[in-house]
Amino acid sequence: MEGKPLGIDAIFNPRSVAVVGASDNPGKLGSHVMKGLTQGRYPGRIFPINPGKDEIMGIKTYASLLQVPEAIDLSIIVLPAEQVPKTIRECKEKGIYGVILITAGFKEIEDKRGEVLQQEIADLANQFGIKIVGPNTFGVVNLHLPLNASFTPEFSWVGKGGISFVSQSGGMSHLMAFLSMRSQVGFSKIIGLGNRCNVDFADMVEYLAEDHETKVITMYLEGIDHPRRLMEVAEKARERKPIVAYKVGRSHTSDMASQFHTGSLAGKHRIYEGAFRQAGILMVESSEELLDVAKALAISPLPEGINVAVLSGQAGPGMAACDVCETEALSLSPFSPDTQKRIEELLPPLAIRTNPVDMGPAWYDSAAIKGIVQAVLEDEAIDAIILCIMFASANRASVGILSELLLRRRERKPILCCISAPMGIWDEEIKRLEESGIPNYPTPERAAKTLANLVRFKKLLRREYELL
Amino acid sequence: MEGKPLGIDAIFNPRSVAVVGASDNPGKLGSHVMKGLTQGRYPGRIFPINPGKDEIMGIKTYASLLQVPEAIDLSIIVLPAEQVPKTIRECKEKGIYGVILITAGFKEIEDKRGEVLQQEIADLANQFGIKIVGPNTFGVVNLHLPLNASFTPEFSWVGKGGISFVSQSGGMSHLMAFLSMRSQVGFSKIIGLGNRCNVDFADMVEYLAEDHETKVITMYLEGIDHPRRLMEVAEKARERKPIVAYKVGRSHTSDMASQFHTGSLAGKHRIYEGAFRQAGILMVESSEELLDVAKALAISPLPEGINVAVLSGQAGPGMAACDVCETEALSLSPFSPDTQKRIEELLPPLAIRTNPVDMGPAWYDSAAIKGIVQAVLEDEAIDAIILCIMFASANRASVGILSELLLRRRERKPILCCISAPMGIWDEEIKRLEESGIPNYPTPERAAKTLANLVRFKKLLRREYELL
Repeated sequence: MEGKPLGIDAIFNPRSVAVVGASDNPGKLGSHVMKGLTQGRYPGRIFPINPGKDEIMGIKTYASLLQVPEAIDLSIIVLPAEQVPKTIRECKEKGIYGVILITAGFKEIEDKRGEVLQQEIADLANQFGIKIVGPNTFGVVNLHLPLNASFTPEFSWVGKGGISFVSQSGGMSHLMAFLSMRSQVGFSKIIGLGNRCNVDFADMVEYLAEDHETKVITMYLEGIDHPRRLMEVAEKARERKPIVAYKVGRSHTSDMASQFHTGSLAGKHRIYEGAFRQAGILMVESSEELLDVAKALAISPLPEGINVAVLSGQAGPGMAACDVCETEALSLSPFSPDTQKRIEELLPPLAIRTNPVDMGPAWYDSAAIKGIVQAVLEDEAIDAIILCIMFASANRASVGILSELLLRRRERKPILCCISAPMGIWDEEIKRLEESGIPNYPTPERAAKTLANLVRFKKLLRREYELL
Repeated sequence: MEGKPLGIDAIFNPRSVAVVGASDNPGKLGSHVMKGLTQGRYPGRIFPINPGKDEIMGIKTYASLLQVPEAIDLSIIVLPAEQVPKTIRECKEKGIYGVILITAGFKEIEDKRGEVLQQEIADLANQFGIKIVGPNTFGVVNLHLPLNASFTPEFSWVGKGGISFVSQSGGMSHLMAFLSMRSQVGFSKIIGLGNRCNVDFADMVEYLAEDHETKVITMYLEGIDHPRRLMEVAEKARERKPIVAYKVGRSHTSDMASQFHTGSLAGKHRIYEGAFRQAGILMVESSEELLDVAKALAISPLPEGINVAVLSGQAGPGMAACDVCETEALSLSPFSPDTQKRIEELLPPLAIRTNPVDMGPAWYDSAAIKGIVQAVLEDEAIDAIILCIMFASANRASVGILSELLLRRRERKPILCCISAPMGIWDEEIKRLEESGIPNYPTPERAAKTLANLVRFKKLLRREYELL
């Protein structure tokens, strides 16, 4: 048997979980949490705790934590707020050092007692060395174990992958999960920080920076209490793992609302921008942009420079990509003379043969298509490729032919695609490309915007701030 | 029997169609066109034309147009370029005034003969009063007839709706179709203009402005030869039907590429912006933005002003919407005192109760949720509502409860939603809301951006250019 997981690891990788306040009444959060664990195929032991029940969902139930005859690594608490301090003491007594406190009614409520109670719990946890995610959170999900320690069983439908998401908003976590289900983006961990009584962004970034299943750390923030510690932790993690932040509060109203919502010093969006940049954290401005760039950072190499080639199966989508590239200060620079010569041998003169390249006229000539892409892959004047192919019945074979070439590539050069077709047609090919590090996007504009973000991130890594 | 369709109407609503160059060889475009018609359930008569066949896909085949014993309204031509002039003459002889010329190899090729041939065909068509869409086009789709007169049978999978799309790029048309399949947006007509030998944007806008099945006209443009005529036609249509344009060429490179691709005067993006604004055409900057705003314009009322209420089931997504609203110059203005009082009676004090409203604390109180939304609907200080609700197992009933209220509303006030859930959970509720004029978007940011575009369009209608 492996050793006991310590600190935050007890929250993500527990060998056993207790649900304090478990229920089989569908109107209670305690039943949703039980469903999340059981339907989510958590492989460890589950101990429901409820003094009024012998069994919940077919699982033997105990009256209290202290009556459980085995070791427990993680305790998920869904009891009313006033019962929580007692439960934290029982956790200590039972040797439980990981807690997810779903219960609301603490710092976020009007009654001052909420804040007092939260402080009491934080003090206990700090004294006992217990890590508490929450209170007032949906929970935590680790798709790799798998562990769905949340009140939303449907989080288990999210695919497994390299993105971890740490969020100050439960709503935003749910949104990201649902978006990912529609775009086949895989997550490692999804974390609702809630009121952050003793686990904050910095703790999570520190943990995730060392977590092998996490390839990229993403965050949704409204405002934080201890920005300096987050920046220090991010600064240490910057060489090992990309960190991306979506912070609301650009506008006055949402800034005020977030102060109200989180009770923390939000505001000062510009200050965050500067601090994040210094710490190597990439900032984005929407939920989709966050997911798009995280997907690329999780699987794709980074571009060495700003020189982009746009190769498209049809001229229009290629031009749409070009517009975004140039707006985002990428360079559609000339090919090297060799590449240009090869392309001119493969495409008729009236085709668009410089950069962008419209491969349309070579549609029925798979050797030509492959020759063009190979030439651009090998061209040292080009740092990254955007590849756009729209399905038509007549070009059905093209993506298979191209992926044959791309899957065998040796060049470590980012390739971002917009390969678009009705559902079911190129799904397999796109999946294989993504598995080999070539992300696909629903539109040429989003592929180009994502590449621009990879370039921005590369510049952050090189501390080329003046170019941002 | 109805009368013969005239002019462009023969192209969209033919009672019978001939496919000149029909084939059953899957390597030939003529076979894809035949599949598009048959699998797409075109209800009229189909006459394949091919001198080497008696029958194609089970349909009696004729050696030439002139041998068909019945009347033909539309001829789809997929013959080699040099055979096209003869076929146009036969169309005239047979009384066919609608032609879709899919064949490539005209103005867009290197050989000067291509341009000469295209001019010859245009001259013939103009002389005979024949309308030709193309050459060098994928074709035309009318989802309402239905008629899939294109080389992509999969266009028939697009849903039926109020958006018509006129495009200078086949690739962009395919992209829009595939995006719409994933987001359940319905189209009326999809048109690939190709080389525009005698049917251009202006002709289509003129036709679609009178077409009852078209609620909003959308265009993708690279560059046009006769901008003045388009502006005149749009100016006439502006009071009747919204027109939205996505024009590439904002950047230097795509501008140059589009000159090359279309052989037309592209360039001068700024001039287009000014002219479109004068003509009441709303410009957008991406394919998704085009689809998002077209969906709203097809079903939603327009806002009377810029005062937006953001109501959300969870604070985070609401704040994300607020950020976009304020960036886009919408106003999250205070509620009227009455509304504010009603909300304060329904939500606890520490909830976000001004604008935005976080309805989270009232989650389990459907009367409170309905009360809040009804109060804001009735508030004359509010011109439009953004409603964001993220699914969690515990709020599963909420969207049903809200839509009960919304489906009965009398207020003509735009409501744009981001109601997000795993597939299959709220699909029915979202569909009913959309059928009642409330469009749904995948993220709060896109709902807010779309509302901003509705406001911009309303200002265009009022000729309030200085505010744009």
